[in-house]
Amino acid sequence: MTKSILDIVKGCDNFVSYDEPTSRSGVLGKCYEFRMQWSDLWSIDHHKQTVTLDTPATATVDMRSLLLEDTLTTTRKSGVISMLESWRDENFPVYGPEGEVLLEIERCASALFGIVTYGVQLLCYVRDKQDLRLWIGKRSARKQTYPGMLDSTAAGGLGAGKLPIEALICEAQEEASIPEEIVRMKVKPMNNLTYFHIRGDQAGGEAGLFQPEIEYTYELELDPSTIPKPRDSEVECFSLYTVDEVLYALKRGQFKPNSAIVIVEFLIQHGILNAENEPDYSEILSHLHRKLEFPLRIQPSN
Amino acid sequence: MTKSILDIVKGCDNFVSYDEPTSRSGVLGKCYEFRMQWSDLWSIDHHKQTVTLDTPATATVDMRSLLLEDTLTTTRKSGVISMLESWRDENFPVYGPEGEVLLEIERCASALFGIVTYGVQLLCYVRDKQDLRLWIGKRSARKQTYPGMLDSTAAGGLGAGKLPIEALICEAQEEASIPEEIVRMKVKPMNNLTYFHIRGDQAGGEAGLFQPEIEYTYELELDPSTIPKPRDSEVECFSLYTVDEVLYALKRGQFKPNSAIVIVEFLIQHGILNAENEPDYSEILSHLHRKLEFPLRIQPSN
Repeated sequence: MTKSILDIVKGCDNFVSYDEPTSRSGVLGKCYEFRMQWSDLWSIDHHKQTVTLDTPATATVDMRSLLLEDTLTTTRKSGVISMLESWRDENFPVYGPEGEVLLEIERCASALFGIVTYGVQLLCYVRDKQDLRLWIGKRSARKQTYPGMLDSTAAGGLGAGKLPIEALICEAQEEASIPEEIVRMKVKPMNNLTYFHIRGDQAGGEAGLFQPEIEYTYELELDPSTIPKPRDSEVECFSLYTVDEVLYALKRGQFKPNSAIVIVEFLIQHGILNAENEPDYSEILSHLHRKLEFPLRIQPSN
Repeated sequence: MTKSILDIVKGCDNFVSYDEPTSRSGVLGKCYEFRMQWSDLWSIDHHKQTVTLDTPATATVDMRSLLLEDTLTTTRKSGVISMLESWRDENFPVYGPEGEVLLEIERCASALFGIVTYGVQLLCYVRDKQDLRLWIGKRSARKQTYPGMLDSTAAGGLGAGKLPIEALICEAQEEASIPEEIVRMKVKPMNNLTYFHIRGDQAGGEAGLFQPEIEYTYELELDPSTIPKPRDSEVECFSLYTVDEVLYALKRGQFKPNSAIVIVEFLIQHGILNAENEPDYSEILSHLHRKLEFPLRIQPSN
């Protein structure tokens, strides 16, 4: 039996008409229409006081990060948020309850959401007979944050996927010209410092933002022949301070806030501050090691 | 006035306690908590008979495509859908109402969602005195789809971001060894064919799937010296068919369905089929150019 030309074209264009009663009850009746819909990425609940980022359950970390970045770049262009002016193209991880990375966020935006940030700090010192002297940095007067204030020897944020000790080695080289071998051989971790800082005017950007932070802190005894030298424009100079000079400057508020507490931790480590000579000792410890009520991930210091 | 060590550490860890009544009514009372939530990517409404892909409004085309691909690869691993066994790593665009690309979908999955697909087909012929003879391909007996059936000279799907004429040039080279220069110089577009095919058993994979399709069709008169030659394993051989031989094979259902209608379009173009000699002429035209009730994007053929 041969086909007509109409049969042939109907063999290809063989979908029944939408209007035929048979097709409605038959094939079409069982069909589901494929649709796409766009949902709001953000929802704000003014009653519960929550700002929620809503992404598909199967979205990857990269996708969530890109979606958040898209909001941030759009907001940045609008020029209403000063924090976003200091965009660094450097990502910080945001952890979930199990220590898993949920997404990454541009460094300068972390405080806008109260994200816990992680950093490293290095304090170098020399030993003259019985005395200790500390290598204290002076921040450039042109720096946006805490210009002209005193600082530890080297410090920096801990970007996504970085190990604390590797970040420390980078900062020691970049900010203070201390060779990698010396850091690797002689650095000693001190206790992690955990605090909840509210950004003030000198931090740059909007004041009053919440910045819970964890600092991996390290001390490093240098030979008298190893002299820290500024390499980038962030540090103006380094000077050796006696313990008394350091205490004097501390008490006059000359240190950047989170550098000040690294000094305090160092003084505790070396028994210079202790329960006997410091009446507020235990309260000081509780501020240096505050329990943060946020998801965290602590890595080994070494 | 100098600070105590406690003042100093409080200058860094300066967040008020959660429990202080002042902080609840003050700073904390104004704070919104940052949360993340994961929504279902897919929602199925059995009453409305819809399957909806739900992505964030700011998601890019790439993200939507990746989210869909993730579902497909997971489903493929489960082994329950035969269509996904012939994964090609070739993406087809899915258009929105304005002709914009909404996302891209793996070729073998398009029919699962009833996505409109686009293809190119080339029919070569030679002119002997007054007669036409057509270069007809015979599909390999080992092909998964329509094994051993007759075919146009070259054909293929139109992947995302490809121009029809460029896709045609590739297929002509790959399937029939026809040099690019000859195609560029002498090819002539015929009408686009638009039809709604329901996949049968010979199409491979699940039968009964909806496949609305648009084919950019072309004819190309070859010199007697240019002989199409199979280059890949898809085509067994090419033979010159007279119009009568073509009609004979057509009427016996020897052509792959959407190749058959390219032959029909060619016969119409050359006046061999017309309103006088074909009683079903207008109905044939309506099947070759069905109005598809889906978002489409038609590109220029040339």
